[in-house]
Amino acid sequence: MAQLETFDNPHPGRDYVIRHVAPEFTSVCPVTGQPDFGAIEIEYVADKLCVELKSLKFYLQGYRNEGVFYEDLVNRILDDLAAALAPRRMKVTGRFTPRGGMHSVVVAEHPGDARP
Amino acid sequence: MAQLETFDNPHPGRDYVIRHVAPEFTSVCPVTGQPDFGAIEIEYVADKLCVELKSLKFYLQGYRNEGVFYEDLVNRILDDLAAALAPRRMKVTGRFTPRGGMHSVVVAEHPGDARP
Amino acid sequence: MAQLETFDNPHPGRDYVIRHVAPEFTSVCPVTGQPDFGAIEIEYVADKLCVELKSLKFYLQGYRNEGVFYEDLVNRILDDLAAALAPRRMKVTGRFTPRGGMHSVVVAEHPGDARP
Amino acid sequence: MAQLETFDNPHPGRDYVIRHVAPEFTSVCPVTGQPDFGAIEIEYVADKLCVELKSLKFYLQGYRNEGVFYEDLVNRILDDLAAALAPRRMKVTGRFTPRGGMHSVVVAEHPGDARP
Amino acid sequence: MAQLETFDNPHPGRDYVIRHVAPEFTSVCPVTGQPDFGAIEIEYVADKLCVELKSLKFYLQGYRNEGVFYEDLVNRILDDLAAALAPRRMKVTGRFTPRGGMHSVVVAEHPGDARP
Amino acid sequence: MAQLETFDNPHPGRDYVIRHVAPEFTSVCPVTGQPDFGAIEIEYVADKLCVELKSLKFYLQGYRNEGVFYEDLVNRILDDLAAALAPRRMKVTGRFTPRGGMHSVVVAEHPGDARP
Amino acid sequence: MAQLETFDNPHPGRDYVIRHVAPEFTSVCPVTGQPDFGAIEIEYVADKLCVELKSLKFYLQGYRNEGVFYEDLVNRILDDLAAALAPRRMKVTGRFTPRGGMHSVVVAEHPGDARP
Amino acid sequence: MAQLETFDNPHPGRDYVIRHVAPEFTSVCPVTGQPDFGAIEIEYVADKLCVELKSLKFYLQGYRNEGVFYEDLVNRILDDLAAALAPRRMKVTGRFTPRGGMHSVVVAEHPGDARP
Amino acid sequence: MAQLETFDNPHPGRDYVIRHVAPEFTSVCPVTGQPDFGAIEIEYVADKLCVELKSLKFYLQGYRNEGVFYEDLVNRILDDLAAALAPRRMKVTGRFTPRGGMHSVVVAEHPGDARP
Amino acid sequence: MAQLETFDNPHPGRDYVIRHVAPEFTSVCPVTGQPDFGAIEIEYVADKLCVELKSLKFYLQGYRNEGVFYEDLVNRILDDLAAALAPRRMKVTGRFTPRGGMHSVVVAEHPGDARP
Repeated sequence: MAQLETFDNPHPGRDYVIRHVAPEFTSVCPVTGQPDFGAIEIEYVADKLCVELKSLKFYLQGYRNEGVFYEDLVNRILDDLAAALAPRRMKVTGRFTPRGGMHSVVVAEHPGDARP
Repeated sequence: MAQLETFDNPHPGRDYVIRHVAPEFTSVCPVTGQPDFGAIEIEYVADKLCVELKSLKFYLQGYRNEGVFYEDLVNRILDDLAAALAPRRMKVTGRFTPRGGMHSVVVAEHPGDARP
Repeated sequence: MAQLETFDNPHPGRDYVIRHVAPEFTSVCPVTGQPDFGAIEIEYVADKLCVELKSLKFYLQGYRNEGVFYEDLVNRILDDLAAALAPRRMKVTGRFTPRGGMHSVVVAEHPGDARP
Repeated sequence: MAQLETFDNPHPGRDYVIRHVAPEFTSVCPVTGQPDFGAIEIEYVADKLCVELKSLKFYLQGYRNEGVFYEDLVNRILDDLAAALAPRRMKVTGRFTPRGGMHSVVVAEHPGDARP
Repeated sequence: MAQLETFDNPHPGRDYVIRHVAPEFTSVCPVTGQPDFGAIEIEYVADKLCVELKSLKFYLQGYRNEGVFYEDLVNRILDDLAAALAPRRMKVTGRFTPRGGMHSVVVAEHPGDARP
Repeated sequence: MAQLETFDNPHPGRDYVIRHVAPEFTSVCPVTGQPDFGAIEIEYVADKLCVELKSLKFYLQGYRNEGVFYEDLVNRILDDLAAALAPRRMKVTGRFTPRGGMHSVVVAEHPGDARP
Repeated sequence: MAQLETFDNPHPGRDYVIRHVAPEFTSVCPVTGQPDFGAIEIEYVADKLCVELKSLKFYLQGYRNEGVFYEDLVNRILDDLAAALAPRRMKVTGRFTPRGGMHSVVVAEHPGDARP
Repeated sequence: MAQLETFDNPHPGRDYVIRHVAPEFTSVCPVTGQPDFGAIEIEYVADKLCVELKSLKFYLQGYRNEGVFYEDLVNRILDDLAAALAPRRMKVTGRFTPRGGMHSVVVAEHPGDARP
Repeated sequence: MAQLETFDNPHPGRDYVIRHVAPEFTSVCPVTGQPDFGAIEIEYVADKLCVELKSLKFYLQGYRNEGVFYEDLVNRILDDLAAALAPRRMKVTGRFTPRGGMHSVVVAEHPGDARP
Repeated sequence: MAQLETFDNPHPGRDYVIRHVAPEFTSVCPVTGQPDFGAIEIEYVADKLCVELKSLKFYLQGYRNEGVFYEDLVNRILDDLAAALAPRRMKVTGRFTPRGGMHSVVVAEHPGDARP
């Protein structure tokens, strides 16, 4: 995986919301080896650090040839970003295109419980 | 009905939300024998187990030639999935196409009371 | 008005939500005698009884040549359904097409106060 | 301004919501004299009185050649309707078409504080 | 930056919501020098002062050739408007078009914590 | 059926197109006696006469309690309007809401052959 | 397959267009045995006969447990309807939901060549 | 009516299309005195002259308190613009909001016959 | 590239249209090495052969790590499919997501000239 | 203006269509000095040369602080691109956001007459 880079939060005295949406996400199904497609949405309140957009793009591209389940993927992205940014709070949502006639969404939050 | 298969929740330490939407659902009206059509949405917070997608597809296909009322159908799917997964919480929504000029939605949750 | 028919709630142990939407509703303006058009949405949590769909269709058709104000109509439908079903709770919404350049919505709930 | 006319609330024992939307509203900018366009939405819980639709249409048409700021207009409509109906609660929303590349919305409620 | 001009709140006795949306915003990326595009939405409850629309347009045009990060931009607009208006509360949202395949949203509020 | 009224074409020297759309049409199924719903669109090039809108509304309301097949209905409306207006050309389209899970459209033109 | 029933074209002297859309079509993939879903649209100019809607519904339901390729299905429906109705012309379109990430459309016309 | 102003076509050697859409049009019904609302679309190929946008706005505002039928209005706008610009060709479309449950469109072209 | 597989056209006596849309296409920019995303639409009239869907999916997946320009890509897919199927005619359309703020479409046809 | 760069058409033996859409265009009104916003769409059939996307982006950015009328702008872009590429044919469309309540579209083609 590419290194997530950060820059200093320009307004750390205020709780404000940053949301990045990457609609061109692709990974690989670990069972069939077939490509999966979807959109990853990252929403967070920064503490000291913000994620730099270009490094976030490269980080997400790192899954292009990686075999990973939806449920695992969203939690791993959340863990990596939370480790890099130590945000006040963060939510990662993955919305995946249909497989077997079904489409799926996975939502994970840091810290605390998920809210649907 | 096909057996619902499960796999171990890869991140049991976190409450996170999983949602699968199956827009190609069909069953049969128990009164007229005519086919019914709709979409089934399953949203849950896993505890130890997640539902495997292919087995969920086969399970839902099991209603294809089954005569069942909307109100009963949604509750049965909820009961079967709750029994197989023992989720922290789960909501099943059925949205059905028009019959007699009316379209219908049924929403059931486990555990506790339904929230509109 | 046609008789509203009911069937036994197949899952009375659970509070779950049933919603029927009838987009082909028509009645008559009591002042001008001109036809009114709209959609009636009925959402409820059943206690012992569910409303049978075909009888609901005939009941709503009973307003076809009836002169009635929007505000009165929605409350009357709520009263009739609440009397027939004794639901744990119920909400009736009427959405009406433009008259004099204005379109109108009326929402009534049983029991207790309306929530916008 | 045309007189707002009322009729007796047919179901005063229940708090229920009435919403009228007038998408063909026009007034005049008090600074430039240019016409302004927008939609006015009125939502209320009646106490003893409901507003009669035709008189509401004429009342809103009364602003056609009136010079008035958006912020003032929405509050004046709310004041006039609240005075005529003495509603349990009421919300007036004005949505205005673009001027100088910007479109505007103003929302006022009676009684108490505005809720965005 | 152009001076933000104000006028007296015509209804200071009531908390009501004013929202202006400027979908034609453009600034410059401070790293690449390339133009950025987006929409700025300003929602506030006025105390003594309202912002005059024409001066708001000129103020936002002041960023046309300014190099500024999304996170910084939204907070600066909020700070400038809060300083000029001393509103009871205010929220500024910036929605930016895709860069590197990702689109971004930043939301900041005055006073207190951001609410997603 | 109400009488179709006409007024003199104000610009008979030019071939221009007039289109009226009535989305609140209802008639009755001649087999089941159940109400049918749909939208009627009338497009024509006037010769000496234009149809007066209020009389067109009353004419279409004349089908409210009439039993008639879709295929017959659209041709009858075309025949009646063509007889009343003697238009240079005319097209009538009926779009009907679902019955038995299917929705239907019928298009007839005067004079000459239908063009899909 | 259920018998297609017909009724006499009520306006044989005019070429006019009839279109029925059945969005609740389902058949079975002849290779995998998995259900396929889609919408069937039938557009025709009747000569002496029109297709009766209820029999068309039953005819299309006859494919519910039939294994058939998309390309074959659309041509078979066209052949059956053309044989039953001897229409002046007819077009059948099948629009199918995604399989393997791809969705498909097949269009066949009688008589003569297909027009995209 | 305000004077239509023009400027020299900057590229008279090429036939190219100019389209202006004014969605904030209002006039008055000559029968009832009630306001009418709609959108006016003007599409033309300039010869020597183009219409100046601000004067077009003022010209269209000239109908604000004018009583005029839809059919007449669209032809008058076409006549006035054709007289002022002598365009190679021009089409004027008026789309009007619902009156009596029906919405209307009128399309006129210069020179020659209307094409639907 | 995976081998394109075919099956016999089940209705070679009729010119009919087959369209497959693959919205999950991805390749690589030959200049920057960055991933490109888009949708590929294939529309054809079969002669003796139809393309088998699973092999088409694998063929398109063959571009996943291939560096290729949009203009070249669409023509290569057309050439490969035309060589495998010898269709009566075929059109390939590629619609690509924004790069540098611009999105692109390329359309090529076999045989003969492109039609916009 | 930035130099438009080209690359060799990879399939000159076939007439095929290339379309680039730039929705983030901005220039300046030559009369008021206020910014204008819009989308520029370029569609062409290449002969020997294709336009390189990055240079096209820089070329369009060259209008950012340029005062130019809509009618002139679209023709100038067409002239510059036609001079650089010598395409078999080309169409340039500019769609501009509302000014004075009106939005405008200009379409020019090379060679020959404009087609609406």
